[in-house]
Amino acid sequence: MTNNAQLKQDIIEQFGTPCAVIDLDIVDKNIAHLQARCDHARLANRPHIKTHKSPVLALRQLKAGAIGITCQKLGEAEIMAEAGIKDILIATNIIGAARSGRLAALQRRMPLKICADNPVSLGLYADAGRAAKRPVRVVIECDTGQKRAGVVTPNEAVALAKIIQDNPWLEFGGLMFYPPISGWPATQGFLDATEGGLASLGIVADIVSTGGTPNLKNIGQLNGATEHRSGTSIFNDRMMMAAGVADITDCALTIYTSVVSRAEDSRGILDAGSKTFTPDTGGLDGFGLILEHPKARIPKMAEEHGFLDVSNCNTKPSVGDVVRVIPNHVCVVANMFDQLVAVSDNAIVEILPVAARGRLV
Amino acid sequence: MTNNAQLKQDIIEQFGTPCAVIDLDIVDKNIAHLQARCDHARLANRPHIKTHKSPVLALRQLKAGAIGITCQKLGEAEIMAEAGIKDILIATNIIGAARSGRLAALQRRMPLKICADNPVSLGLYADAGRAAKRPVRVVIECDTGQKRAGVVTPNEAVALAKIIQDNPWLEFGGLMFYPPISGWPATQGFLDATEGGLASLGIVADIVSTGGTPNLKNIGQLNGATEHRSGTSIFNDRMMMAAGVADITDCALTIYTSVVSRAEDSRGILDAGSKTFTPDTGGLDGFGLILEHPKARIPKMAEEHGFLDVSNCNTKPSVGDVVRVIPNHVCVVANMFDQLVAVSDNAIVEILPVAARGRLV
Repeated sequence: MTNNAQLKQDIIEQFGTPCAVIDLDIVDKNIAHLQARCDHARLANRPHIKTHKSPVLALRQLKAGAIGITCQKLGEAEIMAEAGIKDILIATNIIGAARSGRLAALQRRMPLKICADNPVSLGLYADAGRAAKRPVRVVIECDTGQKRAGVVTPNEAVALAKIIQDNPWLEFGGLMFYPPISGWPATQGFLDATEGGLASLGIVADIVSTGGTPNLKNIGQLNGATEHRSGTSIFNDRMMMAAGVADITDCALTIYTSVVSRAEDSRGILDAGSKTFTPDTGGLDGFGLILEHPKARIPKMAEEHGFLDVSNCNTKPSVGDVVRVIPNHVCVVANMFDQLVAVSDNAIVEILPVAARGRLV
Repeated sequence: MTNNAQLKQDIIEQFGTPCAVIDLDIVDKNIAHLQARCDHARLANRPHIKTHKSPVLALRQLKAGAIGITCQKLGEAEIMAEAGIKDILIATNIIGAARSGRLAALQRRMPLKICADNPVSLGLYADAGRAAKRPVRVVIECDTGQKRAGVVTPNEAVALAKIIQDNPWLEFGGLMFYPPISGWPATQGFLDATEGGLASLGIVADIVSTGGTPNLKNIGQLNGATEHRSGTSIFNDRMMMAAGVADITDCALTIYTSVVSRAEDSRGILDAGSKTFTPDTGGLDGFGLILEHPKARIPKMAEEHGFLDVSNCNTKPSVGDVVRVIPNHVCVVANMFDQLVAVSDNAIVEILPVAARGRLV
């Protein structure tokens, strides 16, 4: 976060603004830190690539010790498989991609792990396994309070495990949790009851996966867990700072954006709006932290305009100034760019395609 | 909006879900309707391509009578120029793209119209004009209440016009407004005062541009306007329905999405979350209107999960059902896809690349 006037000059001349820039030194520190936390908790590290969508960075995570990766969409898994990654967990129910034939195609190429919380998904996975002539390994998603996807009782989890056990084109892989921050004791109860039920079927959960970057606070607190999934920690953001799991010096991605209008003394406009930052506030005030003007606010966005409130700034930015913004929610912001400009020691070193961006299916 | 079970089947088999589908029959009706409204108001039609980002659709708008197009970013203009479009207004201050050299490159290829509200932008445009050996035509952005970009007094507009007049690499093109819905009388006052000041310099505004799809209610009410810019009207959305300028039968774009989880009777999950719909609510309740289940709500989104509240539905969707959602704000949703699947009469007819998507600079 040192003065980087020359880097700003290089970036605007080579790429223009807005530009998504990652500091590789911070990225590597964050990758190592996550690995160390997982190692310390004696858990395998299965980072979620939804944050960066870059095979280059996924391979960097594996090299640092990750056992495999997590993807949210089959399309992301396709991109990562092309890069040679062999251990992939898809952490959502796949239906649209299964019915399009793409699940079978990827399963033919490599054995996937996919989560499910219902018999319809299981039926489609079995169809894909049969078509691929290779059983699909299923991890049952269990909900312990997010009220998102996931079975809500241990009995349901065991019933799905029985369906998997009885189908030659499915294999039981284990259980997946995304516990609420305060929901780890309840998750322990759910896991224990489910493992009891599985034992009566003669089944053991090889994988017991926990997830979430804010949940790094709780990592290791689930007795029986085997691995953890964290996405955001590779870059961090203003939300992770607010959650108390990152500091400003841990934030690897900033948006370089130009001040393009200062129509009145109290306000201005950035050339990055909701098509850059998305309208995701993450529950915070405004849309990002401006490093050069921490007292400035970004209270509102139009598609290509970031509204700037500089009324509290002692020194106010001028038209033409380039500023760096730590976004509120980095996962959705990286997803708006086709490439990330990687820098190290204030010099541009690499352009990383956000290769799995737009892989919505 | 007829029953389209076969089309759903075709879409999921060919593309999977989520999938962005446009009904070309509605698109053509909407294009014709906008042209007719502009014709009736005796204004040129300069549609904003930010909504579709598709050269195919821009050419369709020109064929129906549009005088030219509006772009928000230089990158969008580059894509449209490649498609052979010759009359392009860039409706934002360009600074990052100017300093990267791309403005000069495009200006060398064709004469652009670009807006500005400050002398810094004018200086960069003049540099580009000199480099391109072709003066840049500048339209001065005037703010009459949005508090976004734009000079806030007629005197400032006239002062910028004088700078343009005095620079051999700039040409004065006119004035651009984006009036608030209720701000048209104030805009008239601003325009009249500015034209008075311009007259004293011996300058005439060839272009006086108004903008906005909700402002189609007011089209023609600015005496002296020469053209109107409307983007959203080509597709329409739930916001335009709420604004009273579109009906459900005018909404051309729907997201086809699968129900992938129904963990409890009152709720479910769609395979389209904030990386499909963006978190833009447009001030409305929930994130879209589900055509098959209009009483269902989408109260919340995770990145790849659309939360579904079906507690008020008489008939509840099942896991595996494909539903069609009219998004709240279509401009930001089309921008999340690499392609739009175009249908007519319930059959797939064309795949349209969202060619200018991701053109953030």
